[in-house]
Amino acid sequence: MNRIPQTVRTTLRRLPKRGNFDREVINQILDEGFICHVGFCVDGQPFVIPTGYARVDDRLIIHGSQASRMLRTLEQGVDVCVTVTLIDGLVLARSAFHHSMNYRSIVIFGRAMLIENREEKLAALLALSEHMIPGRWADVRKPNERELQQTTVLSLPLTEASAKIRTGPPLDDEVDYELPIWAGVIPLQVVSGAPKPDPRLPAIRVPNYALQYNRST
Amino acid sequence: MNRIPQTVRTTLRRLPKRGNFDREVINQILDEGFICHVGFCVDGQPFVIPTGYARVDDRLIIHGSQASRMLRTLEQGVDVCVTVTLIDGLVLARSAFHHSMNYRSIVIFGRAMLIENREEKLAALLALSEHMIPGRWADVRKPNERELQQTTVLSLPLTEASAKIRTGPPLDDEVDYELPIWAGVIPLQVVSGAPKPDPRLPAIRVPNYALQYNRST
Repeated sequence: MNRIPQTVRTTLRRLPKRGNFDREVINQILDEGFICHVGFCVDGQPFVIPTGYARVDDRLIIHGSQASRMLRTLEQGVDVCVTVTLIDGLVLARSAFHHSMNYRSIVIFGRAMLIENREEKLAALLALSEHMIPGRWADVRKPNERELQQTTVLSLPLTEASAKIRTGPPLDDEVDYELPIWAGVIPLQVVSGAPKPDPRLPAIRVPNYALQYNRST
Repeated sequence: MNRIPQTVRTTLRRLPKRGNFDREVINQILDEGFICHVGFCVDGQPFVIPTGYARVDDRLIIHGSQASRMLRTLEQGVDVCVTVTLIDGLVLARSAFHHSMNYRSIVIFGRAMLIENREEKLAALLALSEHMIPGRWADVRKPNERELQQTTVLSLPLTEASAKIRTGPPLDDEVDYELPIWAGVIPLQVVSGAPKPDPRLPAIRVPNYALQYNRST
């Protein structure tokens, strides 16, 4: 089993049994999700910004406008914390106290690096596109030089990362199992609806990757 | 229109037209979501932790174990950034560059306060339960004194908050509208599945709030 080394920052202080450092487990969660929350500090002030991402091997890729405050801060090499959270269900226990959620989350610590090389940048943008909507890249107009210059792409190594996972039914106090209260899990899932064509679109068939869009792996 | 005063921290530097400070808009997004990402700094190191929340009037409520590092840090009154993100769709433009997402996000800055008063604490826990699963509180075994003591509840005032919203079709470069490329939106939504009873549950009818669980407002 390929494990990511545990560090002080990634060690769970509470419920350590929910922690997981298996690279395959971490990769699978990162590949199913597509939104991360990027945290960074500016003069002790925290900022948490949602953005899309892709995983390429053992790196996380994010991108955006070169005018973005977040990216301009991150490319300076400040400490960053990136969190990806998948909510799988609401856990209804017999007691209010033991209500919980089933989830899979990833926390990554590190410092991001700017991808400047043109070919690497294009490869990262392709990966971002294919991570969000597999199959889309082949159809679209590719970035031109001006667009490439306006786009900042950052790479964060997945060297300090951990998963935290809860699954299964509620865990009630033993005495509470006698209570006549329904208990169990309400599963939650992100699902796609019927694609809505752009009002300015002529009659073009909806591609299968849009018709059958599915986040679950 | 009841607006939350704009501050330096909540002013969008880019795409200011996506910003919204209308309290009704902010409240509606907070009421539809149920997971927030809490960001804080410890010695310049950012942490981003996902957790459930509830809104009570103009305050955001979060809770957890009194042993939680996050809550122990926050209750000291450090600066916090709490972000709530709802993803409504993937926006497929004709160019790779103009791909986007439709989303509604809230960013809140401030400092949290500990709720110590027993009655306020119980009211906050009730609000958290009803926010996550409306109707559940009436059915469950309520917190006892030991559980109340083990639970930390924090309140964050919604005095410095803003929404950022993108809706609608892709916006392509004018010249790209000629390209024979499908463009439009893939709607995304969080949906619930059939409730899974706890294996240790006797024959108890599934309550309607679990059968018909629905996050959309």
